[in-house]
Formats: sequence, C-alpha cells, structure tokens
Amino acid sequence: MASMPRTRITRLAEYAISDRHVLDALLDTARVCHVGLVDDGWPVVVPTAVARDGDRVLLHGSTGSRWMRTLAEGAPACVTVTAVDGIVVARSAFESSMHYRSAVIFGTATPVEDPERSRLLDVLTDTLLPGRTTEIRSPSGREMAATLLLAIPIEHWSLKVSHDWPDDPDSDVAGPAWAGVVPMRTTYDDPRPAPDLRPGIDVPPSVHRLRG
Amino acid sequence: MASMPRTRITRLAEYAISDRHVLDALLDTARVCHVGLVDDGWPVVVPTAVARDGDRVLLHGSTGSRWMRTLAEGAPACVTVTAVDGIVVARSAFESSMHYRSAVIFGTATPVEDPERSRLLDVLTDTLLPGRTTEIRSPSGREMAATLLLAIPIEHWSLKVSHDWPDDPDSDVAGPAWAGVVPMRTTYDDPRPAPDLRPGIDVPPSVHRLRG
Repeated sequence: MASMPRTRITRLAEYAISDRHVLDALLDTARVCHVGLVDDGWPVVVPTAVARDGDRVLLHGSTGSRWMRTLAEGAPACVTVTAVDGIVVARSAFESSMHYRSAVIFGTATPVEDPERSRLLDVLTDTLLPGRTTEIRSPSGREMAATLLLAIPIEHWSLKVSHDWPDDPDSDVAGPAWAGVVPMRTTYDDPRPAPDLRPGIDVPPSVHRLRG
Repeated sequence: MASMPRTRITRLAEYAISDRHVLDALLDTARVCHVGLVDDGWPVVVPTAVARDGDRVLLHGSTGSRWMRTLAEGAPACVTVTAVDGIVVARSAFESSMHYRSAVIFGTATPVEDPERSRLLDVLTDTLLPGRTTEIRSPSGREMAATLLLAIPIEHWSLKVSHDWPDDPDSDVAGPAWAGVVPMRTTYDDPRPAPDLRPGIDVPPSVHRLRG
C-alpha cells in the first residue's frame, strides 16, 4: 500500500488543532461524513452517517453496497467530517470565507463482528437521534444480517477550526463596507407524523429534545 | 487515465434523479462541497466552497494550495454536494435514515483564465452571500494573482434525492413507536459586527436577506 498522506496541516497552519476533545465533539454531533475511496484510479466521495466509539469512527450500510464492500476489503479510506458554523463577511471577496470545523481521518476499515456489533449499531442510531434506541425495538436477525458495520481507527487525523473575524487590511477597514460574521446552525422544524402513524402515539422525548 | 466510475446509481436506484434543474438547485444553494482526489493511492477529501456557472462547477483557492494545484494539473476529481434535509424517524433503527439530496460529479478541472475569471469569482462570492459583490470593491491585482479558479464540467454526474416517509413493516406500524420526519434546515443567527467595524456602518442588504 502506498504511504499514507501526511496529516500535518501546512496551509493555514494557524487553524490546525491537535486537541482530541475538539475532534470528538465534532464527530459526535456531525451525523454525516464524506467518505473517500479510490475506484480504478478515480476518487469517489460518498456522504454517509458517521458516529464515534472511543478511538474509532463507525460507518454502516447495506451488505449490498459496493463502496461499503470495497472499504470492508481494506481499501484506503478518507473520512472527512465538516461543520459549517458561519459566514465570514469581510470587506472584500478575497477575505470573505466561512467559519468551519473540519476533520480528516485516513485509515482502513475493519468489519465489526457480533457481539460488539449490536452495541455499535446503537451508537450510530443514537448519534442520528440521541436516545432513540430506548424508544424502539432491537434490530431483528434479518436486519442485522443485511447490515455491514465498519470501524476506522482515529489514528491518522487532522483538524482545522476557523472561527476568526474578518482580517481586512487597514485600507478596507477605513472604507464603507460592513464586516462581521453571520453564525449558521442547523435547526429542526415541527416533526411531521408519518401518514401511517396510528392515533394516540405522541411525539417521543428524543424528537422533543432535538428541538430544545 | 483509468475509465471514469459509472454514474448510474444501482443502490436505492428509486432515489436517482436525472433532472438537471434539481441538480442545479442543489449546486446553487449548497455553498460547500467535498472534493475528492487521489494522492499516492490514497483518497483525500477536502471541504471547499462551490458554485455553478452554467454547465460547470467552480472551485477556488490559494495558488499555494497543494490540492488545488493537483486538480489544476488535471488529476481525476470527484465533487460531492450534499444537503441534509431531515431525520427519518422510523419505528426501527433499520428503517431510520435521513432526508438528503446528494450529487456526485466526476471530471477533471481546468484553470479559468482572465478575463472570464473575474466574473466567475463574483459568482463564487455571490453564492457564499447572494448580492455581496454589489456591496464591496473589486478584487485587486494582487488578490487575483493569489487566487486559483478551477472549473469542472457538469457532464458525468448522478443525483440522489431521498425525501420519503419511514417505510416500516406492518408489524412495526402496529406497535407503540412514533414515526415521522423531523425537517432540518440551516438558519442564521444575528450578525455579529467585526471588532474593527467603524461606527455608523449598517448591516448590509445581503446579510438582511439571508435572515429572510
């Protein structure tokens, strides 16, 4: 296998963060990552659910998924997790940018086997919607058989956090343009009950908690 | 060069969309994409700003950026744009998922040269914050010289849209668990003025419009 890409950040190195707690906070709340793999010389980038268990990131999918099977066979993988936290409105296009946190993890995946697999699938479910596993039945044998769970070690990683103010030159600061940051976040609208929901079943605590 | 990965969607093919208008709507509002490239056999996935001009997606960055230079040299690229629109709260973990729109574009990048470059950098700026270019000065020669602008044709692409209700089996529908969808969206908090903002400069229309 080729040597792993360096994880030392050279561009905008002042944004590099080596604190695992910051990485973990991002992984634990992101829900979605973008997984990269190589297919016959071409990069392929797939969005998918992500969760963390200790020093591993977890991915899951159908046993029929081609890219999941490729990863399961040990193909080199890149897991990128990004949170966009705001728009940096500078006084010029050049200095305008975004507030973000972005993690890149390189590694190869290992399929997770029973009995650990049940617990880690619950971690994925509770990352999608915290507390949901306490409200639903356990997966059936058929469902477990159709699910591939992969783990990638959090070993070769880098993290960038950009939460700065606009950095305009004095000549622009003296000018007429406004500058600042517009914070962005994900919000949740009113839950919509499924058309086949039976009467008398209330919105569960997990969904209420989402909306704070 | 190796043959391009097929863009025909085989998994969950019922979600495949071939309508360019749906693709364009996603590209025009997403702001951020994940670009994949191959570095010595390893996939590398980088989040970056994205915009669209007609039948091309636009990426930009510093001329000092290693991955931008690699793309500029014609390395195979994958541009993935994802919008997460909600949580599908099914009655089992197995059927739970997300509402999403996800586009994958394969191709190679071409550097955009002057004079077209100025207009297309404005497209990127106005995708980040619509209308902003009318409020700020034009880029300087020095800024233009430090910026690399790349275009990738929208030719080999696929798009998946999953906006369905939970698809629970009858045995779960008869059970006690709630099911539905919790819509998610990005919202903008109060703009925060830069510490060096001079008094008397109001929040501009571009920022007001963001907040609807």
